[in-house]
Amino acid sequence: MSIPFGSGAHHDGSEAYLSDPNPELGDTVTAFVRVPNDADVRRVVARTVNDAEPFRLEATLDRTSATEQWWRVDLRAHNPVTSYRFHLADGAGRTTWLTGEGLQAWDVPDTADFRLTTEHDPPAWVRETVWYQVFPDRFARRSDGGLEAPLPAWAHESGWNDAIETGEPGSMTQMYGGSLNGVTEHLDHLESLGVNGLYSCPFFPAHSNHRYDASAFDRVDPLLGGDDALRRLVTEAARRGIRVMGDLTTNHSGNHHEWFTSAMNDPEAPTRSYYSWREDGSYEAWLDVPSLPKFDHRSSALRAALYDGPDSITGRYLGDEFGLAAMRIDVANMTGRLRDVDLNRLCSTTLRATMRAVRPDAWLVAEHFHDASSDLDGGGWHGTMNYTGFTRPVWTWLLRDDVEISAFGEPGSLPIRSGRDAVRSARAFQSRIPYSVALTNMNLLGSHDTARWAYATGSPELHAVGVALLMTWPGSPSVFYGDEIGCGTDASYDVTARQTFPWSDRSGWNHDLLETYRELIALRTRSSALAVGGQRWISVGDDHLVFVRESRDERLLVHVSRTGHPPVRVGLGALGVGGAHVIAGADASVDGGSIRLEASGPTWRIVELTDPL
Amino acid sequence: MSIPFGSGAHHDGSEAYLSDPNPELGDTVTAFVRVPNDADVRRVVARTVNDAEPFRLEATLDRTSATEQWWRVDLRAHNPVTSYRFHLADGAGRTTWLTGEGLQAWDVPDTADFRLTTEHDPPAWVRETVWYQVFPDRFARRSDGGLEAPLPAWAHESGWNDAIETGEPGSMTQMYGGSLNGVTEHLDHLESLGVNGLYSCPFFPAHSNHRYDASAFDRVDPLLGGDDALRRLVTEAARRGIRVMGDLTTNHSGNHHEWFTSAMNDPEAPTRSYYSWREDGSYEAWLDVPSLPKFDHRSSALRAALYDGPDSITGRYLGDEFGLAAMRIDVANMTGRLRDVDLNRLCSTTLRATMRAVRPDAWLVAEHFHDASSDLDGGGWHGTMNYTGFTRPVWTWLLRDDVEISAFGEPGSLPIRSGRDAVRSARAFQSRIPYSVALTNMNLLGSHDTARWAYATGSPELHAVGVALLMTWPGSPSVFYGDEIGCGTDASYDVTARQTFPWSDRSGWNHDLLETYRELIALRTRSSALAVGGQRWISVGDDHLVFVRESRDERLLVHVSRTGHPPVRVGLGALGVGGAHVIAGADASVDGGSIRLEASGPTWRIVELTDPL
Repeated sequence: MSIPFGSGAHHDGSEAYLSDPNPELGDTVTAFVRVPNDADVRRVVARTVNDAEPFRLEATLDRTSATEQWWRVDLRAHNPVTSYRFHLADGAGRTTWLTGEGLQAWDVPDTADFRLTTEHDPPAWVRETVWYQVFPDRFARRSDGGLEAPLPAWAHESGWNDAIETGEPGSMTQMYGGSLNGVTEHLDHLESLGVNGLYSCPFFPAHSNHRYDASAFDRVDPLLGGDDALRRLVTEAARRGIRVMGDLTTNHSGNHHEWFTSAMNDPEAPTRSYYSWREDGSYEAWLDVPSLPKFDHRSSALRAALYDGPDSITGRYLGDEFGLAAMRIDVANMTGRLRDVDLNRLCSTTLRATMRAVRPDAWLVAEHFHDASSDLDGGGWHGTMNYTGFTRPVWTWLLRDDVEISAFGEPGSLPIRSGRDAVRSARAFQSRIPYSVALTNMNLLGSHDTARWAYATGSPELHAVGVALLMTWPGSPSVFYGDEIGCGTDASYDVTARQTFPWSDRSGWNHDLLETYRELIALRTRSSALAVGGQRWISVGDDHLVFVRESRDERLLVHVSRTGHPPVRVGLGALGVGGAHVIAGADASVDGGSIRLEASGPTWRIVELTDPL
Repeated sequence: MSIPFGSGAHHDGSEAYLSDPNPELGDTVTAFVRVPNDADVRRVVARTVNDAEPFRLEATLDRTSATEQWWRVDLRAHNPVTSYRFHLADGAGRTTWLTGEGLQAWDVPDTADFRLTTEHDPPAWVRETVWYQVFPDRFARRSDGGLEAPLPAWAHESGWNDAIETGEPGSMTQMYGGSLNGVTEHLDHLESLGVNGLYSCPFFPAHSNHRYDASAFDRVDPLLGGDDALRRLVTEAARRGIRVMGDLTTNHSGNHHEWFTSAMNDPEAPTRSYYSWREDGSYEAWLDVPSLPKFDHRSSALRAALYDGPDSITGRYLGDEFGLAAMRIDVANMTGRLRDVDLNRLCSTTLRATMRAVRPDAWLVAEHFHDASSDLDGGGWHGTMNYTGFTRPVWTWLLRDDVEISAFGEPGSLPIRSGRDAVRSARAFQSRIPYSVALTNMNLLGSHDTARWAYATGSPELHAVGVALLMTWPGSPSVFYGDEIGCGTDASYDVTARQTFPWSDRSGWNHDLLETYRELIALRTRSSALAVGGQRWISVGDDHLVFVRESRDERLLVHVSRTGHPPVRVGLGALGVGGAHVIAGADASVDGGSIRLEASGPTWRIVELTDPL
């Protein structure tokens, strides 16, 4: 293994290692490097890059303990994003690099350098939030079981327990009749689960059950209860300490949107500039799907209508009229991008400006199934749905091996990776963004766009290991509705994953799993280490992972395994603490100054580390 | 070793693997992947990223030989830069990624993806050019031994054989009296060496012997012979098939430049906007050196004066008035960058536009001692002085171990790396830019800014191994004047490296080394494989490197070693050829269908591969 794990030298962008993880331009920030005493490090020099020129800054020994040295050096947040790394020199003068990918004894490009970012102003509440994602048509009908409004001609009604139609067009037109009032009336479930964020897939009128083909943005779909239902939901959720996040498509509308029909019918229409037209008069569409005409963000009129300013769609839903706390941006990766035009940054920064104007503590999170690092320097999206840096690594480590799993565009079945390779991958993606951005990413095991986690693992025990990772990983966790009771053991892809919540028949609920979710969510929402702490790798094998999350006032060790493995013994001294005790998950013995981490099968445990040395 | 070398699957952005290495936006390009028959690859799928969204494209088997399969897939140059990589699937459906860093069986970010770039229009001649760099004050006085003009008050004259002054201010003010006429009168030496490019450090008037502190840009320093001397040099060089490259500082001028003195004396001066002023009225300067005031590229007047348009300084020197073929941009990395302002791209693209207007086949190369990948996508600089991707890896592999070498900002001595780590590093840097850009980088073993290569190696044999790498590496090689005769065995840093050329006393010339340079330069300037070919790694060990450069019509195998090593036997079949013979360097035996690469000490050899299977 090329990257040494274990209790080696460490730095990350969390509060234990940076005096200010979110500095202003020009601020001086003190960076700390932790080095084990037995590592023979005699000198630490920071290399920081200002205006694309590297500079060296000698670090000084700040303090030592029985087991560790802490070195310090002052860095300037010289540019909007200022990258840095460290030279660690041994007694013979040999140097090793320390970057976001760990220790590297060869000369690496800047890719994984640490980063100070000055434009990241994430709301603090996001880091303490666990989200619950609902697909409005499928989560709950209103309590009287009726529809909120008559179905339009394109749709057909299903009973709540009917099978999901997987063919065309049923997969898009089958409506189960869930509504926002239905969500409101089931907020007790969310409250008892302990989540404090509700992420709703789109609530705009559309011509499909997923509603990502909006036919209007200026009103809530009457089928979901209309504007009043959204206002009621936000109000009732707030009473339970739950914030609500909307879902806006900035890449395209549906082809039934009046903006588009006007533009199609009249070349002089004011909304003609909103869309992307080809020279032959036809229009660009998302993945060439004709029902999803692509916006042209060069149009200031489009920007003003959709997201630029308090009177825009975005401004209205985040403002006092509706009171949403956050916005998830659908197809954020492609937004504003087409061939030689790239206005993605203009879109994200304008959205941020609108948020600052109407709700300064709003959160902006981007959908992105791919490497999003170039859009995640802190100045644009606050974070992304972290499919590449969390979901995929966890899937490749915990997947069942008895069925083919089609996911993430992989031709053939998604490969099963060792713990080492899964962590290398997660670390590589994390290293490419400022750590403070990683803390405001959204992590998830599944969504309306994937197979169900229950299907992917095929095992409640592996399912739980994934939940333990979800709740302890840097970033804001999101639970897809029904996962908490083990829904979807046969849901092998997105269409079947969008199943109705089995409110009336609880015989199929996995209550043990539900308790696991409750326990871990409770821990996640009260822990500063999990909210803002760094992530330090302690031991990684094919079948087990051990890392520490640590804030200034809390240290938690996380051990997860996908199967039984030889016990891993971790010295408390090497962790820099004098005590340890399990606070959740499988028990572990502490004796002789070390913790013995055992697993005879899929296992998770969280250990609080106490008495810092 | 995590990245398998050997005759594994391969792709790069050269003409053997891309139907068009420099496509236009929207073009379809056929990409090929070479796979050894024994690799159990059953399926090849390209993953390309368009508008930040990944797409999969199934490759088809194009042809097979006794030893290899060639797969093909059509890619669209959808964006100005379109990245891509490959899935290789084995019989069990397991996939491995193929990226610019080789085969990777874990999930890697896009960093090392291959890249189609549509904005790279490098002049073809650069790829066939070997540069010879002169430092004008030190290369040659004019033939009568006199000065071209009286020395200014800040300077003092040295005899040609006097020692270099290393203290302040002598290191900057000591003048040996070399001139452009001196260069012209020694072009026979360049011609006999076989180079076809002359890179001259700055020829503008200044207040130092290095002249990077220009006091004017609109004339050639009278101490160097003035404008007429430059015209004569360009004309005489052209008669010998040698192009001339200038050296322009776009980051700053000297503080004696009239633009700056006017600006300092009069806040209303038209040139006030040219410079970067602080709120307290003081000025920004390069590395805070007061004599080097920093330009402000937000000033359109500055841009017009320096590089925007045919009448700019750049336009004039590249135009018919002087006829320079290329411009090296000093401190290109910091140009236009200061805190939250970054106009570097505007500078490079405007320079390119000016070149297109006055000399469409001009070459633009950037000084950059650091990771330059974000500025090298093809649309800005044509290339960079490749310190990170060539010089540093080669130095770390071939350095002498008996003295401390201070270089590249490393605290303490530059570390000595294994061949594996040196290649990993070189490959990592190369993988971050389009291969067609790598082919128009400038490679070098040393310059006016480093210790001498003769000092760094401490051995003519290791020196020659470096030259073999220089002349066979992708990119345009540059020889620092005097290196070809082994100058500078005691030149441990830049000031002492700027020594006078020993024209009068040839007893110290290393004539064997000179012959090696001549032989390798001749090979480099006539070889299509070395000019435009791909680079495929065959065998890498601590002490040896073997790679193949191959164009559509030529294949050369390069073997270099830093010391003796066990023989490496390479099968011709695995190389896809039926024959092989050494064309330069140490002999090698071919028998039984393989080449036996032996080394009992520092060794280099170049083998032509013939009879493609």
